[in-house]
Amino acid sequence: MKIEAIDLFYVALPEIKRAADGTQDSFLVRVRADNGMYGWGEADASPLASLAVYVAPMSHSNIININEALLGEKVDSPDDVRRLRAKAGAYGLDFEQIDHAVAAVDIALWDLVGKYLNEPVYRLLGYKKTYPKLPYASVLFGDTPAETRKIARGLKDRGFSAAKFGWGPMGKVSLENDVALVAAAREGLGQHPELMIDCGVVWGQDDGAAYERAVRFADSRITWMEEPLHPDAVDAYRRLKDRKPPVRIAAGEGCDFYRSADDLMMNGGIDFVQIDVGRIGGITVTDQVCRRADQLGVTFVNHTFKSHLQLAASIHVHAGIEKFRYLEYPAGDSPLILGLTSPTGLPVNRKGLVDCPDKPGLGVDVNLDTVRRYQRKVRIEIDGKLLFASPDP
Amino acid sequence: MKIEAIDLFYVALPEIKRAADGTQDSFLVRVRADNGMYGWGEADASPLASLAVYVAPMSHSNIININEALLGEKVDSPDDVRRLRAKAGAYGLDFEQIDHAVAAVDIALWDLVGKYLNEPVYRLLGYKKTYPKLPYASVLFGDTPAETRKIARGLKDRGFSAAKFGWGPMGKVSLENDVALVAAAREGLGQHPELMIDCGVVWGQDDGAAYERAVRFADSRITWMEEPLHPDAVDAYRRLKDRKPPVRIAAGEGCDFYRSADDLMMNGGIDFVQIDVGRIGGITVTDQVCRRADQLGVTFVNHTFKSHLQLAASIHVHAGIEKFRYLEYPAGDSPLILGLTSPTGLPVNRKGLVDCPDKPGLGVDVNLDTVRRYQRKVRIEIDGKLLFASPDP
Repeated sequence: MKIEAIDLFYVALPEIKRAADGTQDSFLVRVRADNGMYGWGEADASPLASLAVYVAPMSHSNIININEALLGEKVDSPDDVRRLRAKAGAYGLDFEQIDHAVAAVDIALWDLVGKYLNEPVYRLLGYKKTYPKLPYASVLFGDTPAETRKIARGLKDRGFSAAKFGWGPMGKVSLENDVALVAAAREGLGQHPELMIDCGVVWGQDDGAAYERAVRFADSRITWMEEPLHPDAVDAYRRLKDRKPPVRIAAGEGCDFYRSADDLMMNGGIDFVQIDVGRIGGITVTDQVCRRADQLGVTFVNHTFKSHLQLAASIHVHAGIEKFRYLEYPAGDSPLILGLTSPTGLPVNRKGLVDCPDKPGLGVDVNLDTVRRYQRKVRIEIDGKLLFASPDP
Repeated sequence: MKIEAIDLFYVALPEIKRAADGTQDSFLVRVRADNGMYGWGEADASPLASLAVYVAPMSHSNIININEALLGEKVDSPDDVRRLRAKAGAYGLDFEQIDHAVAAVDIALWDLVGKYLNEPVYRLLGYKKTYPKLPYASVLFGDTPAETRKIARGLKDRGFSAAKFGWGPMGKVSLENDVALVAAAREGLGQHPELMIDCGVVWGQDDGAAYERAVRFADSRITWMEEPLHPDAVDAYRRLKDRKPPVRIAAGEGCDFYRSADDLMMNGGIDFVQIDVGRIGGITVTDQVCRRADQLGVTFVNHTFKSHLQLAASIHVHAGIEKFRYLEYPAGDSPLILGLTSPTGLPVNRKGLVDCPDKPGLGVDVNLDTVRRYQRKVRIEIDGKLLFASPDP
């Protein structure tokens, strides 16, 4: 096949709230080949800034846009996808936004080649079979411990056997309030479900504050304590780990390229590495981090707060490794989560687990009605000449 | 003062060539305060992608644009600049492009506050005096050793006592050709001038290939060997250093945030860290890296391949530290180098050195005629509504 078109879509809810909720908009890419086949991908990134990386005028030989790197290229195999991912990365070396932006087209290319070769993506990555994953619902803390307890009960009633609470008032009031929030989440969930706590980078470089919480949160039997520190604070993560906290530490969603994930694992000493396939440059790089985590004895987990298209892209990467058993599972009610995929997304099975799709490519399709309904039409002109106009879905 | 306006300018030469020459376009920011004062800054980044970070619609609470973070804010002191830099970073945490984009406004804010307090920026950074720097001309290798020799002779005739050759055929033909290129540069320059070699990330992860060159290049007495490996290849840099190459190793221009520079210094073991103030998020972060380098015994050098506005922003950061004596000096003939500043840029003095400006702020002003002449007018609409239109200078 040859890459004939790269269609860029910006979708968004009519009203965007100032909340830590990434399911309010999205950046989608459809790659179309000259044989009529297509693939879809999604980035977890600012749609406008990412779109610019596909169409921006050349600045010099290291700032050349993604369209220029990929249009007209041959793509028939996983090796071609890796080659093209590297080419787009080299052409766009000095776009800082390159990793977020290219993630969408990288995912779309894996989807396309999977369909072309009639193989699910996990097989293209070299795995023979997949293992079902334990989905954890990812929600925000309530404003108070009482509200948090209520939210946790709701999740228990919906049958989740794992849940992650994060952001909101965590770290903003007092140590005792932080402890009460976590205890309330545990109470609401009951004894059995796994509980993860996302601290939303609130203690910055202060490993002491993080350690103090870790000690107290341990009473609520948490699976991990996530991002107590700033994504950049690798030395502070190391100091925290050197204090031997009684809970395991997770981080990594802010990693935009391979080295930043490796740095956190090697030098930060984290226990779980949480990689967003829609930020770190797509399936190609996420696969590298997953294998590296396996080598280092770190547990790989997906970070996913977008649609089930993104979720599918995530699960194919670690589905083949049994011990990487968690799956962050977008469980909110935004129409851009389940509504974006057609006919549905990735359901939770009767055992409470999620199976990796066994269909060609990612195994999910995009609901064009949803794209049409929520599309924001972008038009960019330079010196009065049209540079980009959003296509019809 | 209050920040009243943030004016964004995209300037570019009429024709952009596919060469490793960053002086073909630029992204400029002018901050205007409510008292009529203003400051200028410049990023070394894709203008369109960076501009998007100032105006993109909110995606969620971690993707909020720079204008939203800064307009209307009070700015009277260095502490205010640091506070606003942190605020813009937090608002834009999940824009990957944030560091490149925010660099321009960070520089502009330092310029503005310097003018307001009637102090040069180096004083705002806590230095009492400055030390002149040795400028090195930064040029590309010729296509052959003979051409390279000719270019080197030209630089010698222009009086440069240091020059850096890079990119072009380096690493693309053979070991012997690489050695001949470096030897030709040395021959052309003569015995006295310092010679730096920029390998343009050509050996990727291959520390063996880099080491082999380091051994042979040593005969030409080079000051440093720059970026023999990929910016991301921190482990490969460490392996290269562990081989004890007979020349010193420089890297860092690709560092987009503090940690990536610290990682290269701490874990890559480099001898020189080359920081681009227009990529790593401005003067605020560059100053942090410079002090860290001082602490670690690494030599700080600016990376600058833009106008003398950018050069001024660079020199204020390390002017106060005597031992950091090099200055990358854009010496090409693009009208976007010297022509962008008014009345001139930073001249080379009679001793062949460059002094840090001792005037308020950065100590250079922008030539509005140049901005007018090379401005590219951008217009962005979303759903038919105007999001951004380039202002008149």
